[in-house]
This record gives sequence, C-alpha cells and structure tokens, in this order.
Amino acid sequence: MLQLQAKPVVEEIQSKTAEKTKAFTAKHGRKPKLTVVLVGENPASVIYTRKKGETAMKLGMESEIIAFPWSATPEQVRATIDRLNGDANVDGILIQRPLPPSFKEEEVLYWVSPEKDVDAFHPINAGRLMLGLPSFQPCTPAGVMEILRHYKINPSGKLACVIGRSSIVGKPMAALLLQANATVLHTHSKTPDLKAICRQADLVVAAIGKPEAIDASYIKEGAVVIDVGINRTESGKVVGDVAYDDVAQKCSAITPVPGGVGPMTIAILLQNTIWAAEQREAQKVSR
Amino acid sequence: MLQLQAKPVVEEIQSKTAEKTKAFTAKHGRKPKLTVVLVGENPASVIYTRKKGETAMKLGMESEIIAFPWSATPEQVRATIDRLNGDANVDGILIQRPLPPSFKEEEVLYWVSPEKDVDAFHPINAGRLMLGLPSFQPCTPAGVMEILRHYKINPSGKLACVIGRSSIVGKPMAALLLQANATVLHTHSKTPDLKAICRQADLVVAAIGKPEAIDASYIKEGAVVIDVGINRTESGKVVGDVAYDDVAQKCSAITPVPGGVGPMTIAILLQNTIWAAEQREAQKVSR
Repeated sequence: MLQLQAKPVVEEIQSKTAEKTKAFTAKHGRKPKLTVVLVGENPASVIYTRKKGETAMKLGMESEIIAFPWSATPEQVRATIDRLNGDANVDGILIQRPLPPSFKEEEVLYWVSPEKDVDAFHPINAGRLMLGLPSFQPCTPAGVMEILRHYKINPSGKLACVIGRSSIVGKPMAALLLQANATVLHTHSKTPDLKAICRQADLVVAAIGKPEAIDASYIKEGAVVIDVGINRTESGKVVGDVAYDDVAQKCSAITPVPGGVGPMTIAILLQNTIWAAEQREAQKVSR
Repeated sequence: MLQLQAKPVVEEIQSKTAEKTKAFTAKHGRKPKLTVVLVGENPASVIYTRKKGETAMKLGMESEIIAFPWSATPEQVRATIDRLNGDANVDGILIQRPLPPSFKEEEVLYWVSPEKDVDAFHPINAGRLMLGLPSFQPCTPAGVMEILRHYKINPSGKLACVIGRSSIVGKPMAALLLQANATVLHTHSKTPDLKAICRQADLVVAAIGKPEAIDASYIKEGAVVIDVGINRTESGKVVGDVAYDDVAQKCSAITPVPGGVGPMTIAILLQNTIWAAEQREAQKVSR
C-alpha cells in the first residue's frame, strides 16, 4: 500500500515555480506579486493567509496581505479589489473566504478580474475549465491531479468516483478527471446507494466534509483513494473524509490527512500566480 | 413503452414563450429580437437558420438573418457582432456553425456579449451553468431536461449515464443532470467497457454522433433512453445514436429520431431569447 504524500509533489511544483519566478524577475525587472485580501480575524483564515504570503515570498514572489475588519462593507472591499485589478504590479488577487454574511458570494465571484483570478473562482474561469480551454487551475482539484501525476497513477480509462459536488472541489474535480480520460461517476448526498456505486471505482475522490465517513466497505480492493476532507474531531484531532486505517488495508494507494491533498492547494495557487504574471506580460507584448 | 415525442413539449414551451413575448411587447413597446448570423451557404445551416427565424416570428418576436459569404473574414463578421452587441433593439445573437476554418472557435466563443448569448456558448455562461447560477440554458441539454419534466421522469436519485463529452451537449448535459440530483456516470470514447457501465443506468443520454451505435445490450430493462444523435445514413434515412427498434423492446421510454430531442433545440433558443430580453429590460430599470 502506497501512501501518497504531498511533500515530494509540493517540493517538485514549488521548485519549478521558484525557477519560473526567478526567470520572470530577471526578464521583467519586477517580481510576480500575489495580494491576499482578508476580512475579519477567523483564526484558520489568518493562519492560512499568512502561510500563503510566506510561501510566495519563499519562492521569490512579492506578497501583500490587505486586512479589513469583520465590520467592513462589501463596497469598501470592492473598492480595494478594483484598485488591485488596475494595479499593473499585482498579478494575482485572492479574497480569503469565509466573508461576512453581508457579502453576496454570487457577486464576489465577479470582483477579481479574470486574468488575476488565481483561485479560479470567476465564472469565466470555471467556464474555460469546463470547455477545456487554457485557464487557471482550481487549487484543490488540480492538487489532486498533480499527486496522481507524480505517483504515476494515470486516470485514463479508469472509473473514477467523485463524492461531493461543491463548486470549489467536486465539480471542477469531475471536469479535470473527465479531461484526463477517466470515466467519471459523480455522486453526492442524493445518491441512493453510494456504497455499491463507489465500490466499483478504480479511483475514489472523497470531498464531502464528513469525518471518516468513507470506510473500507465503500472501496474496491486495490483502488486508489484520495481524501480531500479536513475535519477536526471533538478531541481536536484532524481527520479526513476517509477512515484511513480501515481503508488503508484494502486500497493500493491513499493520501494521508494531514499531509495529503491539503498542502497541495498553496502550491497550485502560486503556480497560478506565476502563470498569471507570465500571461499578463505576454499580452502586453502582443498588444 | 412510452415514446417521448417532442411535439407536446415544444407546443407547451412555445405557448409560454409566445405569452411572455406578448406581455413583453405590450410593456416595452418593442418586440424581443433575435439576430442570426450566417456565414456561407451550408445547406443544413441555411435551413436551420431560416427555421429559427420563422419560429421566432411565429411566436411574436422580431427576427433578422445577416448572411455573409463563405469568403468573409473573421474581422468582417466580428465587426457586425460588435455592432449587434451595442444595438439596444437586439436581445439575442446567434452565430450559426459551422464557420470557415479561418475562424478560431476559441475566439468566436467570446464575440457575442454574455447577456445576448442565447446559445449559451460564452465561457462565462458555461461557468455560470457549472456553478449553478441563473444563466442561459444550453439548447440541446435543456431540451432533454424539458422532455423529462414534461413526461414526469424525475432524474433525482437516478443513475444517469451520459455518453459523450462535447462542450455543446455531453458536458452541459452532465451538469444539468447533476443539478437535478441525478448520480451522473459520464462516459466517452475512452471508457473501456461502456456496455457494462451503461447497462447499470436508469437513464441513458446518447450523444456520440454514431448511427445506431447503442443497441439493447447497452440498456437496462426498463431504463429511460434519450437519443441526441441525428445521423444521416447512406440511404438518406435519418437515424439517432440509438438502435431504436432494438432498444424500444427493452426500455420503458425512448425519444424517437426524428421528432425527439431535435425539435426541442429551437424551442429552448427562443425561451432564451425572451429571457434575454426580460433580463436586459430589468437591468435598465435597476440602473
């Protein structure tokens, strides 16, 4: 049984990103820049935002965090995003979620201009992904694809079961697996006999946010299991959506939690940031 | 065995569209307007374009066809689309495919402005569909959903097998079925054992463009079968992707070809056109 650890994959991607960042900086006389906009002081968001900034700097990028109090209005934050959209030195913009309830997600999706949308949340980027056009990569699903690539697990021709249909993970995950020639079984809370369906799959991606909900009875002997869940139990332990110890005895490969899909997200985010910087400079030339 | 004919569904949708068109015209003092841009004289395109215009007029809309010779350049057509985008009296714009090879589809996708994009081809509309936001309906897949609704076949909880992954049918079809709470099995040319997979499905949507490729051996007893294919055999007969006579003996319901999914497309297109007109007028008020 192979444990699919993120560490070597993250190192591989970060090293490529650092190289590209160096070349970009030498060529254009400025560093690629990521700006993270944070509203409020949700402890997880604060840690995550800081980590994004630190990693960006470690890879040679410029990074900036703009913090608003939880009492900030959508208009105030929007005005800052508009300014950043027009700032020639800012390549990537990310609005950290969650946002206060006065912010309407359906509107916020449109704030960051598509060419700086390193989270790939803008509908135009969701559409480009669906249509198979070059675009920003959705961070978590693309992280899963990079793990598969690194460990030489080719989804082509495989039956891949995606559990969950969120806009951030389940739906773009299904799109990427389909693009990689997997046959995709897209399941969710309304799937009547999830166990019987899931048990057919060569590859299972669990993204439902329920601690250890997927045990060995859902898994085919020898399947590959990717656990996107990050849940904190009452005792404070971090567990995935998959019952690791149980499933590990039946599958051929599995991502641990923590140390599996989680760390991939920031690596992809920064890959998107250097891509944004390169695309923006290339467009300047072609104009 | 129930034959799922388009006729009553088309009549139902067209009658609603005609009512809305009448109310719109009375309220705004102008008719909703659909403009179809045709390049060249591909016989099928000419017939189809004319049919769209005639149906629009039958339902009380204004309709216009702008025809270019096959030798037209992308710049010429683009300039016309730009003018139409800015024309306050035009609600819906459609560029009839196929286009000459000098037109790059990846660029053409962006020409019609999203709020007049009644074909739902613009990436932003593809993204809104994927994200479950209100948007134009992709004509053929939405036509399938309307057939299911009319004949009281609820996809919720069903295992639905979509065969084919084109941007125009397969992918948006999977998105609509998922949204309707079906468990979606998305299959395609790289699916190794399509027969075994398809045979599990309660609902099969065939969109592969291969005449009569899906016979009864692919179908579960009592399944519902939707045939999106329109293929012309050497003898000139029009057949679907499903071997109708064979499958009809095993399934509980099936769409005929012709007379099944095909006629739905224009009905949805004109539903999109009145929706575009209403949305545009509502936005004028809210400004």
